[in-house]
Amino acid sequence: MEKNSAVIQELASILERKGISRDELDGMLEIVHPVDMAFILEDLTGEEKAQVFKLLDMETAAAVLAELDDNATKEVVNALPQDLVQKVLGAMSADDAAATVRLIAQEHGRDAALEFLSKRQKEQVRELLRYGEKTAGALMTTNFVAVPVTATATEALKALQGAVQSNTVVYIYVVDASGVLKGVLSIRSLLRASPETRITDIMKPDTVTVLPQMDQEEVALIVRRFTLSAVPVTDANGRLLGVVTADTILQVVAEEAGEDLLKMGGAGGLNMFADPVMKRVLLRMPWLIPPLLGGLIVGNIQNWFKGMQPLEFIALVLFIPVMMGTAGNVAVQSSTLVVRGLATGEIKTSRIFGILFAETRVGALIGLVCGALIGAAGWFTASAHIGAIVSISMITAITAAALNGTAFPLILHHFKADPAISAGPFITALNDITATLIYMGCSIALLRILG
Amino acid sequence: MEKNSAVIQELASILERKGISRDELDGMLEIVHPVDMAFILEDLTGEEKAQVFKLLDMETAAAVLAELDDNATKEVVNALPQDLVQKVLGAMSADDAAATVRLIAQEHGRDAALEFLSKRQKEQVRELLRYGEKTAGALMTTNFVAVPVTATATEALKALQGAVQSNTVVYIYVVDASGVLKGVLSIRSLLRASPETRITDIMKPDTVTVLPQMDQEEVALIVRRFTLSAVPVTDANGRLLGVVTADTILQVVAEEAGEDLLKMGGAGGLNMFADPVMKRVLLRMPWLIPPLLGGLIVGNIQNWFKGMQPLEFIALVLFIPVMMGTAGNVAVQSSTLVVRGLATGEIKTSRIFGILFAETRVGALIGLVCGALIGAAGWFTASAHIGAIVSISMITAITAAALNGTAFPLILHHFKADPAISAGPFITALNDITATLIYMGCSIALLRILG
Repeated sequence: MEKNSAVIQELASILERKGISRDELDGMLEIVHPVDMAFILEDLTGEEKAQVFKLLDMETAAAVLAELDDNATKEVVNALPQDLVQKVLGAMSADDAAATVRLIAQEHGRDAALEFLSKRQKEQVRELLRYGEKTAGALMTTNFVAVPVTATATEALKALQGAVQSNTVVYIYVVDASGVLKGVLSIRSLLRASPETRITDIMKPDTVTVLPQMDQEEVALIVRRFTLSAVPVTDANGRLLGVVTADTILQVVAEEAGEDLLKMGGAGGLNMFADPVMKRVLLRMPWLIPPLLGGLIVGNIQNWFKGMQPLEFIALVLFIPVMMGTAGNVAVQSSTLVVRGLATGEIKTSRIFGILFAETRVGALIGLVCGALIGAAGWFTASAHIGAIVSISMITAITAAALNGTAFPLILHHFKADPAISAGPFITALNDITATLIYMGCSIALLRILG
Repeated sequence: MEKNSAVIQELASILERKGISRDELDGMLEIVHPVDMAFILEDLTGEEKAQVFKLLDMETAAAVLAELDDNATKEVVNALPQDLVQKVLGAMSADDAAATVRLIAQEHGRDAALEFLSKRQKEQVRELLRYGEKTAGALMTTNFVAVPVTATATEALKALQGAVQSNTVVYIYVVDASGVLKGVLSIRSLLRASPETRITDIMKPDTVTVLPQMDQEEVALIVRRFTLSAVPVTDANGRLLGVVTADTILQVVAEEAGEDLLKMGGAGGLNMFADPVMKRVLLRMPWLIPPLLGGLIVGNIQNWFKGMQPLEFIALVLFIPVMMGTAGNVAVQSSTLVVRGLATGEIKTSRIFGILFAETRVGALIGLVCGALIGAAGWFTASAHIGAIVSISMITAITAAALNGTAFPLILHHFKADPAISAGPFITALNDITATLIYMGCSIALLRILG
């Protein structure tokens, strides 16, 4: 690593001086990993990126392009002449090429994007593009090693030796004449078997498979649950289509977790570092609509109660921040737990009512503790009446917050919406409104009762 | 999968009837994966878990125990006789055994925990326990395939065939006489080489390595960045100690992302489903201290201004919810972006001032938009004065929120604290106080200026 980062620095300073010659770069590239290269390139302009790409041999260029983030990829494609892009794509594996074509298609349409491919590649990629983004079909590699059920150990070894990219090959797949997956073989058992052993005698016949249209989150759950190094993708008839490897899933899990995190923080879809300031402002505004509207509604609800005795009103209003803040936090806690539980698969449909009930109990108990504390504060600083009002309001509002926070993401999930968006701005705004209504309602009622 | 879930259901119903016989279970176990087994067992009581464990053969028991979550593992260990636990641990790989010993040590102390191991295993595990939790050393497996630099392809193949657990072997490591890592070999290049080829001629000499004390998050970043299937762990002298595989990293990434998510939602350390209601209440209370204190402080700040004309005070107080809510959301957005950027390694120290400056600009622009909206609302519903006050306060508060939200996690990170805790309850509470101070300060100042 240390060595690499020294190389990166040198490369970066060379690039800065802009006098990049093929010779200089060649010396570097033998040791610099495409990932590092991509990392450096992402900081350059589109022009500069293209300048470097022209100097790379096709294999390296393909590896680097596959590593670039989405924006950088688009820049490179736009800045390079089409025939060069074609060559670079030609050096890519079908799944990487398909991912790049998906990006090009966003700007130029799918047909134009496919024109960047050679005839043979076009067919393969078109096949992969049939599957929706973020599905097993879109993630799978078609570079797997498969042998017929009639093969012997020696034949399987030959197939393995001939594999194009077997750096990542962990299993060998056994298929029948029509391509139906019959079993899986580890390299170890293959190496241990005597040459004439029939492959069907040493393969593991029962294996976990996924369908190409399965969502990537589900695929990730299965890979994690079974600690697999790769999972085969088969069609409805059991025909082997491709393989999703653990390192692909690793990227998926990391991305999905990051997306959930951003959504919950009201920053979904934002890329802090790639986008210009104005774009960031525009992307952030929609997430601010809930608190803006919610805040105005809350202010209005409070306004209804202006008719109250001013001093009482002021005393009550002073306790609104602590109540809204605490209830809001309880709601966010509950919805975070639910979002997480849904993501890990811990929340099963059969458990939903149990979860709602338990969370409401938890909320009520937290409400009792917080209500007692704030009630005491109200009593000391204002009056026993105010103390009673804020205490009872707090208990009710926090219980409602726990219920809200639990139910909202579950409802979204039920209607196939993304529960992660619920835990951020929406639940807070929703909860502020509920809390204020409860608070003001309790105040009015109790002020009347207590005289 | 379908087949498996049918089996799971059957097993579950058998377990329910509690009349589990060895014979019945044996039939199931040939097809049920240890992961499924662990999944079922986690829903049973400690007693029931032990009952099932007694029926399993040692290899299966070891595999299932390694899959159980922390609480379930502790229950099983406590419910089983010590000699049986010893046997199960004996069937585990050193890294799995070390992880279990770590858990036992939490309740019974390290020395007592090590007593569960056989002599030979004790040494290996003690070695692994030297490394802190959540480091490369704690995650690595010592079941790797290494060959000396003098080996030929044939000898390397033999080593591979003799490997204990090579289901997950992707690379073969080449070491010199003192165990220093000299290169890495893919299985494919090994299979392609002629029998007498010297291993040093086909190995890749430059390889990414990590130190055993490296934090698991950093290891995960490296594995992801270089799309590795496994990364070797070496000591300061370059001696090969073990290997961290991509599937281990997958669990780490998923767990870390989940933890960050929970922390940001003010629910760090909570396990919604495993803990009883009272424990959940206790675990959630600390996260509610910031909003409780923050809310009381905000209420008090507002209280200082009681001396203002009541009507003006009321009009102003009515706009506090929308301002606090919106500014709070902006702060959470900013800190979420920073937490995420730190986790992915996108935020480098050299960029910190650039990020602070850009985020503050973004905040100011968002403030202008929101300030104009709310200023108009204030003008229409109250007066031009109120409109001007809320508008200017909003702009200032939102700019400050973006700065707060960006700086706070960066400061925590600088002092080696976990930035994820900043994005939740803390930043909201901190921001509510700042926003109120700004709002009230602006109000006083502007009311004086405007007459």
